[in-house]
Amino acid sequence: MVQIAEQVRRTRGRPPIRSDEETRRLLIEAAAEEFQANGYAGTCMADVAQRAGVSTKTVYRLIPNKADLLTRVVSDRIGQFVLEIEPDALDALPLPEALERMLLAYGTLVLSERTIAMHRLVIRECDQFPEVAAAFYEAAIRRANDAMARWLRRQCERGLIALEDPQTAAGMLRGMMSMDPQRAVMLGQGAAPDQEEIAERAKQCARLFLYGCLVR
Amino acid sequence: MVQIAEQVRRTRGRPPIRSDEETRRLLIEAAAEEFQANGYAGTCMADVAQRAGVSTKTVYRLIPNKADLLTRVVSDRIGQFVLEIEPDALDALPLPEALERMLLAYGTLVLSERTIAMHRLVIRECDQFPEVAAAFYEAAIRRANDAMARWLRRQCERGLIALEDPQTAAGMLRGMMSMDPQRAVMLGQGAAPDQEEIAERAKQCARLFLYGCLVR
Repeated sequence: MVQIAEQVRRTRGRPPIRSDEETRRLLIEAAAEEFQANGYAGTCMADVAQRAGVSTKTVYRLIPNKADLLTRVVSDRIGQFVLEIEPDALDALPLPEALERMLLAYGTLVLSERTIAMHRLVIRECDQFPEVAAAFYEAAIRRANDAMARWLRRQCERGLIALEDPQTAAGMLRGMMSMDPQRAVMLGQGAAPDQEEIAERAKQCARLFLYGCLVR
Repeated sequence: MVQIAEQVRRTRGRPPIRSDEETRRLLIEAAAEEFQANGYAGTCMADVAQRAGVSTKTVYRLIPNKADLLTRVVSDRIGQFVLEIEPDALDALPLPEALERMLLAYGTLVLSERTIAMHRLVIRECDQFPEVAAAFYEAAIRRANDAMARWLRRQCERGLIALEDPQTAAGMLRGMMSMDPQRAVMLGQGAAPDQEEIAERAKQCARLFLYGCLVR
Protein backbone atom coordinates (compact mmCIF):
# COMPACT_ATOMS: atom_id res chain seq x y z
CA MET A 1 0.00 0.00 0.00
CA VAL A 2 2.72 2.44 0.93
CA GLN A 3 4.50 1.73 -2.32
CA ILE A 4 1.38 2.39 -4.31
CA ALA A 5 0.78 5.62 -2.43
CA GLU A 6 4.34 6.70 -3.20
CA GLN A 7 3.94 5.91 -6.87
CA VAL A 8 0.76 7.92 -6.99
CA ARG A 9 2.48 10.83 -5.33
CA ARG A 10 5.48 10.56 -7.66
CA THR A 11 3.29 10.66 -10.72
CA ARG A 12 1.77 13.88 -9.46
CA GLY A 13 5.10 15.60 -10.02
CA ARG A 14 6.47 15.75 -6.44
CA PRO A 15 10.20 15.30 -6.02
CA PRO A 16 11.13 11.60 -5.96
CA ILE A 17 10.88 10.16 -2.46
CA ARG A 18 14.02 8.70 -0.96
CA SER A 19 13.98 5.29 0.60
CA ASP A 20 14.74 5.09 4.33
CA GLU A 21 17.99 3.40 3.38
CA GLU A 22 19.06 6.35 1.23
CA THR A 23 18.06 8.81 3.94
CA ARG A 24 20.07 6.86 6.52
CA ARG A 25 23.08 7.06 4.24
CA LEU A 26 22.74 10.84 3.97
CA LEU A 27 22.47 11.07 7.74
CA ILE A 28 25.52 8.91 8.33
CA GLU A 29 27.60 11.05 6.00
CA ALA A 30 26.35 14.25 7.60
CA ALA A 31 26.99 12.83 11.09
CA ALA A 32 30.56 11.87 10.21
CA GLU A 33 31.24 15.48 9.27
CA GLU A 34 29.48 16.93 12.31
CA PHE A 35 31.31 14.62 14.73
CA GLN A 36 34.63 15.43 13.14
CA ALA A 37 33.99 19.17 13.26
CA ASN A 38 32.39 19.48 16.69
CA GLY A 39 33.22 16.37 18.69
CA TYR A 40 30.64 14.07 20.18
CA ALA A 41 29.43 16.38 22.93
CA GLY A 42 29.19 19.30 20.51
CA THR A 43 27.08 17.50 17.91
CA CYS A 44 23.30 17.48 18.11
CA MET A 45 20.78 15.51 16.11
CA ALA A 46 19.17 18.71 14.77
CA ASP A 47 22.45 19.88 13.21
CA VAL A 48 22.94 16.50 11.58
CA ALA A 49 19.39 16.67 10.23
CA GLN A 50 20.00 20.13 8.84
CA ARG A 51 23.28 19.19 7.20
CA ALA A 52 21.61 16.17 5.60
CA GLY A 53 18.60 18.24 4.50
CA VAL A 54 16.24 16.01 6.45
CA SER A 55 13.65 16.90 9.11
CA THR A 56 14.56 16.27 12.75
CA LYS A 57 11.45 14.12 13.02
CA THR A 58 12.70 11.85 10.25
CA VAL A 59 16.10 11.56 11.93
CA TYR A 60 14.52 10.30 15.13
CA ARG A 61 12.31 7.89 13.22
CA LEU A 62 15.32 6.31 11.53
CA ILE A 63 18.02 6.60 14.22
CA PRO A 64 17.01 6.53 17.88
CA ASN A 65 19.86 8.53 19.44
CA LYS A 66 23.29 10.06 19.05
CA ALA A 67 25.22 7.01 20.27
CA ASP A 68 23.46 4.92 17.64
CA LEU A 69 24.39 7.51 15.02
CA LEU A 70 28.06 7.28 15.96
CA THR A 71 27.90 3.49 15.91
CA ARG A 72 26.51 3.64 12.38
CA VAL A 73 29.24 6.01 11.22
CA VAL A 74 31.87 3.64 12.56
CA SER A 75 30.14 0.44 11.38
CA ASP A 76 29.79 1.87 7.94
CA ARG A 77 33.55 2.22 7.47
CA ILE A 78 34.38 -1.09 9.05
CA GLY A 79 31.75 -2.72 6.85
CA GLN A 80 33.65 -1.66 3.75
CA PHE A 81 36.85 -3.20 5.13
CA VAL A 82 35.09 -6.45 6.06
CA LEU A 83 33.69 -6.70 2.52
CA GLU A 84 37.09 -6.13 0.97
CA ILE A 85 38.65 -9.02 2.82
CA GLU A 86 35.96 -11.55 1.97
CA PRO A 87 37.61 -14.98 1.77
CA ASP A 88 36.55 -15.63 -1.81
CA ALA A 89 38.38 -12.57 -3.07
CA LEU A 90 41.55 -13.33 -1.13
CA ASP A 91 41.79 -17.11 -1.32
CA ALA A 92 42.57 -17.03 -5.01
CA LEU A 93 45.84 -15.22 -4.25
CA PRO A 94 49.10 -16.73 -2.99
CA LEU A 95 49.27 -16.40 0.81
CA PRO A 96 51.80 -13.55 1.09
CA GLU A 97 49.87 -11.47 -1.43
CA ALA A 98 46.55 -12.19 0.25
CA LEU A 99 47.92 -11.11 3.62
CA GLU A 100 49.43 -8.00 2.07
CA ARG A 101 46.10 -7.18 0.44
CA MET A 102 44.29 -7.59 3.75
CA LEU A 103 46.78 -5.34 5.56
CA LEU A 104 46.55 -2.76 2.81
CA ALA A 105 42.75 -2.66 3.18
CA TYR A 106 43.09 -2.43 6.96
CA GLY A 107 45.78 0.26 6.78
CA THR A 108 43.80 2.30 4.26
CA LEU A 109 40.88 2.28 6.66
CA VAL A 110 42.57 2.93 10.00
CA LEU A 111 45.40 5.21 8.88
CA SER A 112 43.19 7.76 7.14
CA GLU A 113 42.90 11.21 8.72
CA ARG A 114 39.16 10.67 9.11
CA THR A 115 39.39 7.41 11.00
CA ILE A 116 42.18 8.67 13.23
CA ALA A 117 40.16 11.79 14.05
CA MET A 118 37.18 9.62 14.95
CA HIS A 119 39.37 7.40 17.09
CA ARG A 120 40.72 10.40 18.98
CA LEU A 121 37.23 11.76 19.50
CA VAL A 122 36.21 8.48 21.13
CA ILE A 123 39.29 8.34 23.40
CA ARG A 124 38.66 11.91 24.41
CA GLU A 125 35.04 11.60 25.27
CA CYS A 126 34.87 8.11 26.67
CA ASP A 127 34.75 9.19 30.31
CA GLN A 128 31.82 11.45 29.73
CA PHE A 129 30.08 9.08 27.29
CA PRO A 130 31.04 5.50 28.12
CA GLU A 131 28.39 4.22 25.69
CA VAL A 132 30.38 5.77 22.85
CA ALA A 133 33.55 3.93 23.80
CA ALA A 134 31.64 0.66 24.13
CA ALA A 135 29.95 1.16 20.76
CA PHE A 136 33.23 2.04 19.06
CA TYR A 137 35.00 -0.90 20.61
CA GLU A 138 32.33 -3.34 19.42
CA ALA A 139 31.54 -1.83 16.04
CA ALA A 140 35.09 -0.95 15.00
CA ILE A 141 37.86 -2.67 16.91
CA ARG A 142 36.27 -6.01 17.70
CA ARG A 143 34.66 -6.32 14.28
CA ALA A 144 37.88 -5.58 12.39
CA ASN A 145 39.76 -8.00 14.62
CA ASP A 146 37.15 -10.74 14.20
CA ALA A 147 37.28 -10.41 10.42
CA MET A 148 41.06 -10.66 10.41
CA ALA A 149 41.03 -13.56 12.89
CA ARG A 150 38.55 -15.48 10.71
CA TRP A 151 40.90 -15.13 7.77
CA LEU A 152 43.88 -16.27 9.85
CA ARG A 153 41.92 -19.24 11.20
CA ARG A 154 41.07 -20.32 7.65
CA GLN A 155 44.71 -20.24 6.68
CA CYS A 156 45.51 -22.37 9.73
CA GLU A 157 42.81 -24.84 8.65
CA ARG A 158 44.31 -24.91 5.16
CA GLY A 159 47.59 -25.88 6.82
CA LEU A 160 49.42 -22.83 5.47
CA ILE A 161 50.20 -21.13 8.78
CA ALA A 162 50.34 -22.22 12.41
CA LEU A 163 49.05 -19.97 15.19
CA GLU A 164 48.23 -20.86 18.76
CA ASP A 165 45.50 -18.26 19.01
CA PRO A 166 44.34 -16.54 15.80
CA GLN A 167 42.25 -14.02 17.75
CA THR A 168 45.27 -12.72 19.68
CA ALA A 169 47.49 -12.99 16.60
CA ALA A 170 45.04 -10.78 14.66
CA GLY A 171 45.46 -8.12 17.36
CA MET A 172 49.23 -8.36 17.09
CA LEU A 173 49.05 -8.04 13.33
CA ARG A 174 46.80 -4.98 13.58
CA GLY A 175 49.20 -3.44 16.09
CA MET A 176 52.19 -4.01 13.80
CA MET A 177 50.42 -2.37 10.92
CA SER A 178 48.79 0.59 12.55
CA MET A 179 49.93 1.62 16.01
CA ASP A 180 52.96 3.73 15.28
CA PRO A 181 51.74 5.78 12.31
CA GLN A 182 48.34 6.20 13.94
CA ARG A 183 49.86 7.46 17.19
CA ALA A 184 52.03 9.99 15.41
CA VAL A 185 48.98 11.49 13.69
CA MET A 186 46.86 11.35 16.84
CA LEU A 187 49.47 13.36 18.75
CA GLY A 188 49.93 15.82 15.89
CA GLN A 189 53.50 14.66 15.31
CA GLY A 190 53.17 13.47 11.74
CA ALA A 191 50.91 13.41 8.70
CA ALA A 192 48.81 10.38 7.84
CA PRO A 193 50.77 8.08 5.52
CA ASP A 194 49.89 8.18 1.83
CA GLN A 195 48.72 5.16 -0.13
CA GLU A 196 52.23 4.25 -1.21
CA GLU A 197 53.56 4.30 2.34
CA ILE A 198 50.64 2.19 3.55
CA ALA A 199 51.31 -0.33 0.78
CA GLU A 200 55.00 -0.50 1.67
CA ARG A 201 54.20 -1.00 5.36
CA ALA A 202 51.65 -3.72 4.50
CA LYS A 203 54.33 -5.54 2.52
CA GLN A 204 56.89 -5.35 5.35
CA CYS A 205 54.36 -6.48 7.97
CA ALA A 206 53.16 -9.40 5.86
CA ARG A 207 56.72 -10.58 5.35
CA LEU A 208 57.65 -10.28 9.03
CA PHE A 209 54.44 -11.97 10.17
CA LEU A 210 54.89 -14.92 7.83
CA TYR A 211 58.64 -15.44 7.83
CA GLY A 212 59.95 -13.73 10.95
CA CYS A 213 63.38 -12.12 10.92
CA LEU A 214 65.62 -14.85 12.30
CA VAL A 215 68.63 -15.70 10.15
CA ARG A 216 68.59 -19.48 9.72
CA MET B 1 79.73 28.65 49.87
CA VAL B 2 76.15 27.38 49.66
CA GLN B 3 77.28 23.95 50.76
CA ILE B 4 79.07 25.33 53.78
CA ALA B 5 76.00 27.37 54.71
CA GLU B 6 73.89 24.22 54.47
CA GLN B 7 76.27 22.26 56.66
CA VAL B 8 76.20 24.99 59.26
CA ARG B 9 72.45 24.94 59.25
CA ARG B 10 72.38 21.15 59.57
CA THR B 11 74.59 21.20 62.62
CA ARG B 12 72.18 23.60 64.29
CA GLY B 13 69.61 20.82 64.50
CA ARG B 14 67.34 21.73 61.57
CA PRO B 15 65.82 18.86 59.61
CA PRO B 16 68.29 17.42 57.12
CA ILE B 17 68.30 19.36 53.87
CA ARG B 18 67.37 17.46 50.74
CA SER B 19 69.49 17.67 47.65
CA ASP B 20 67.89 19.25 44.58
CA GLU B 21 67.89 15.80 43.04
CA GLU B 22 65.85 14.36 45.88
CA THR B 23 63.44 17.28 45.78
CA ARG B 24 62.99 16.85 42.04
CA ARG B 25 62.14 13.20 42.62
CA LEU B 26 59.47 14.13 45.18
CA LEU B 27 58.04 16.64 42.73
CA ILE B 28 57.94 14.15 39.87
CA GLU B 29 56.08 11.64 42.01
CA ALA B 30 53.64 14.26 43.23
CA ALA B 31 53.13 15.53 39.68
CA ALA B 32 52.37 12.04 38.38
CA GLU B 33 49.57 11.76 40.92
CA GLU B 34 48.22 15.25 40.27
CA PHE B 35 48.18 14.78 36.49
CA GLN B 36 46.45 11.45 36.85
CA ALA B 37 43.83 12.84 39.23
CA ASN B 38 43.13 16.19 37.56
CA GLY B 39 44.38 16.04 33.98
CA TYR B 40 46.94 18.40 32.55
CA ALA B 41 44.76 21.50 32.40
CA GLY B 42 43.50 20.90 35.94
CA THR B 43 46.93 20.56 37.53
CA CYS B 44 48.78 23.60 38.81
CA MET B 45 52.35 23.93 40.03
CA ALA B 46 51.18 25.09 43.49
CA ASP B 47 49.19 21.87 44.04
CA VAL B 48 52.15 19.78 43.00
CA ALA B 49 54.32 21.75 45.43
CA GLN B 50 51.85 21.22 48.24
CA ARG B 51 51.51 17.50 47.61
CA ALA B 52 55.29 17.17 47.59
CA GLY B 53 55.65 19.30 50.73
CA VAL B 54 57.85 21.79 48.92
CA SER B 55 57.48 25.56 48.52
CA THR B 56 56.18 26.87 45.21
CA LYS B 57 59.32 28.96 44.93
CA THR B 58 61.47 25.83 45.10
CA VAL B 59 59.35 24.15 42.44
CA TYR B 60 59.95 27.00 40.01
CA ARG B 61 63.65 27.03 40.82
CA LEU B 62 63.97 23.34 39.93
CA ILE B 63 61.39 22.93 37.16
CA PRO B 64 60.59 25.86 34.88
CA ASN B 65 56.99 25.04 33.87
CA LYS B 66 54.21 22.50 33.75
CA ALA B 67 55.12 21.06 30.35
CA ASP B 68 58.63 20.40 31.67
CA LEU B 69 57.13 18.70 34.71
CA LEU B 70 55.09 16.37 32.51
CA THR B 71 58.13 15.62 30.37
CA ARG B 72 60.02 14.64 33.51
CA VAL B 73 57.24 12.36 34.71
CA VAL B 74 57.24 10.59 31.35
CA SER B 75 61.03 10.52 30.96
CA ASP B 76 61.39 9.06 34.38
CA ARG B 77 59.38 5.94 33.51
CA ILE B 78 60.93 5.49 30.11
CA GLY B 79 64.35 5.87 31.71
CA GLN B 80 63.72 2.79 33.82
CA PHE B 81 62.78 0.81 30.72
CA VAL B 82 65.83 1.99 28.80
CA LEU B 83 68.06 0.92 31.69
CA GLU B 84 66.46 -2.51 31.86
CA ILE B 85 67.21 -3.28 28.24
CA GLU B 86 70.85 -2.25 28.36
CA PRO B 87 72.74 -4.41 25.84
CA ASP B 88 75.14 -5.87 28.42
CA ALA B 89 72.32 -7.36 30.44
CA LEU B 90 70.55 -8.83 27.42
CA ASP B 91 73.42 -9.98 25.23
CA ALA B 92 74.34 -12.76 27.63
CA LEU B 93 70.98 -14.43 26.94
CA PRO B 94 70.02 -16.54 23.91
CA LEU B 95 68.27 -14.35 21.35
CA PRO B 96 64.65 -15.49 21.89
CA GLU B 97 64.95 -15.01 25.63
CA ALA B 98 66.60 -11.63 25.25
CA LEU B 99 63.79 -10.45 22.97
CA GLU B 100 61.19 -11.84 25.35
CA ARG B 101 62.87 -10.05 28.26
CA MET B 102 62.88 -6.78 26.33
CA LEU B 103 59.20 -7.12 25.43
CA LEU B 104 58.34 -7.98 29.02
CA ALA B 105 60.06 -4.81 30.24
CA TYR B 106 58.31 -2.78 27.56
CA GLY B 107 54.91 -4.35 28.27
CA THR B 108 55.28 -3.86 32.01
CA LEU B 109 55.90 -0.18 31.36
CA VAL B 110 53.29 0.64 28.75
CA LEU B 111 50.49 -1.70 29.83
CA SER B 112 50.31 -0.44 33.41
CA GLU B 113 47.18 1.47 34.43
CA ARG B 114 49.36 4.48 35.24
CA THR B 115 51.07 4.69 31.87
CA ILE B 116 47.83 4.14 29.97
CA ALA B 117 46.14 6.88 31.99
CA MET B 118 49.01 9.25 31.17
CA HIS B 119 48.82 8.32 27.52
CA ARG B 120 45.11 9.07 27.44
CA LEU B 121 45.63 12.37 29.18
CA VAL B 122 48.08 13.40 26.47
CA ILE B 123 45.78 12.33 23.61
CA ARG B 124 42.93 14.22 25.22
CA GLU B 125 44.72 17.46 25.80
CA CYS B 126 46.99 17.63 22.80
CA ASP B 127 44.85 20.12 20.87
CA GLN B 128 44.81 22.57 23.72
CA PHE B 129 48.45 21.94 24.71
CA PRO B 130 50.41 20.88 21.65
CA GLU B 131 53.68 21.21 23.60
CA VAL B 132 52.52 18.34 25.82
CA ALA B 133 51.96 16.03 22.86
CA ALA B 134 55.35 16.97 21.41
CA ALA B 135 57.09 16.38 24.74
CA PHE B 136 55.37 13.04 25.25
CA TYR B 137 56.16 11.93 21.73
CA GLU B 138 59.85 12.73 22.15
CA ALA B 139 60.34 11.68 25.75
CA ALA B 140 58.25 8.52 25.66
CA ILE B 141 57.45 7.12 22.25
CA ARG B 142 60.55 8.07 20.32
CA ARG B 143 62.89 7.21 23.16
CA ALA B 144 61.38 3.76 23.75
CA ASN B 145 61.45 3.08 20.03
CA ASP B 146 65.06 4.23 19.68
CA ALA B 147 66.15 1.97 22.53
CA MET B 148 64.43 -1.02 20.96
CA ALA B 149 65.76 -0.18 17.49
CA ARG B 150 69.32 0.01 18.85
CA TRP B 151 68.95 -3.45 20.27
CA LEU B 152 67.53 -4.80 17.00
CA ARG B 153 70.31 -3.14 15.01
CA ARG B 154 72.91 -4.84 17.21
CA GLN B 155 71.35 -8.23 16.57
CA CYS B 156 71.45 -7.49 12.85
CA GLU B 157 75.15 -6.61 13.17
CA ARG B 158 75.75 -9.84 15.05
CA GLY B 159 74.18 -11.63 12.07
CA LEU B 160 71.40 -13.14 14.16
CA ILE B 161 68.46 -11.41 12.52
CA ALA B 162 67.88 -9.61 9.22
CA LEU B 163 65.76 -6.46 9.06
CA GLU B 164 65.52 -3.90 6.28
CA ASP B 165 64.82 -1.06 8.67
CA PRO B 166 65.28 -1.69 12.41
CA GLN B 167 63.67 1.65 13.29
CA THR B 168 60.40 0.75 11.56
CA ALA B 169 60.61 -2.84 12.77
CA ALA B 170 60.88 -1.60 16.37
CA GLY B 171 57.61 0.28 15.87
CA MET B 172 55.97 -2.86 14.50
CA LEU B 173 57.22 -4.88 17.45
CA ARG B 174 55.90 -2.30 19.92
CA GLY B 175 52.54 -2.31 18.14
CA MET B 176 52.32 -6.11 18.32
CA MET B 177 53.03 -6.08 22.01
CA SER B 178 50.97 -3.19 23.21
CA MET B 179 48.29 -1.78 20.92
CA ASP B 180 45.39 -4.10 21.56
CA PRO B 181 45.52 -4.46 25.35
CA GLN B 182 46.33 -0.76 25.72
CA ARG B 183 43.39 0.28 23.56
CA ALA B 184 40.95 -1.89 25.53
CA VAL B 185 42.00 -0.20 28.78
CA MET B 186 42.02 3.27 27.24
CA LEU B 187 38.43 2.82 26.09
CA GLY B 188 37.34 1.35 29.41
CA GLN B 189 36.64 -2.04 27.81
CA GLY B 190 39.06 -4.16 29.78
CA ALA B 191 41.39 -4.23 32.76
CA ALA B 192 45.13 -3.79 32.37
CA PRO B 193 46.79 -7.20 31.92
CA ASP B 194 48.54 -8.68 34.94
CA GLN B 195 52.19 -9.63 34.99
CA GLU B 196 51.52 -13.19 33.91
CA GLU B 197 49.47 -12.09 30.91
CA ILE B 198 52.14 -9.60 29.90
CA ALA B 199 54.79 -12.33 30.12
CA GLU B 200 52.69 -14.69 27.99
CA ARG B 201 52.13 -12.00 25.37
CA ALA B 202 55.84 -11.15 25.33
CA LYS B 203 56.62 -14.80 24.66
CA GLN B 204 54.12 -15.07 21.80
CA CYS B 205 55.29 -11.82 20.22
CA ALA B 206 58.95 -12.79 20.43
CA ARG B 207 58.25 -16.11 18.76
CA LEU B 208 56.15 -14.58 15.98
CA PHE B 209 58.68 -11.80 15.37
CA LEU B 210 61.60 -14.21 15.11
CA TYR B 211 60.08 -17.23 13.41
CA GLY B 212 56.91 -16.01 11.69
CA CYS B 213 53.92 -18.32 11.39
CA LEU B 214 54.39 -19.84 7.94
CA VAL B 215 54.32 -23.63 7.84
CA ARG B 216 57.39 -24.69 5.90
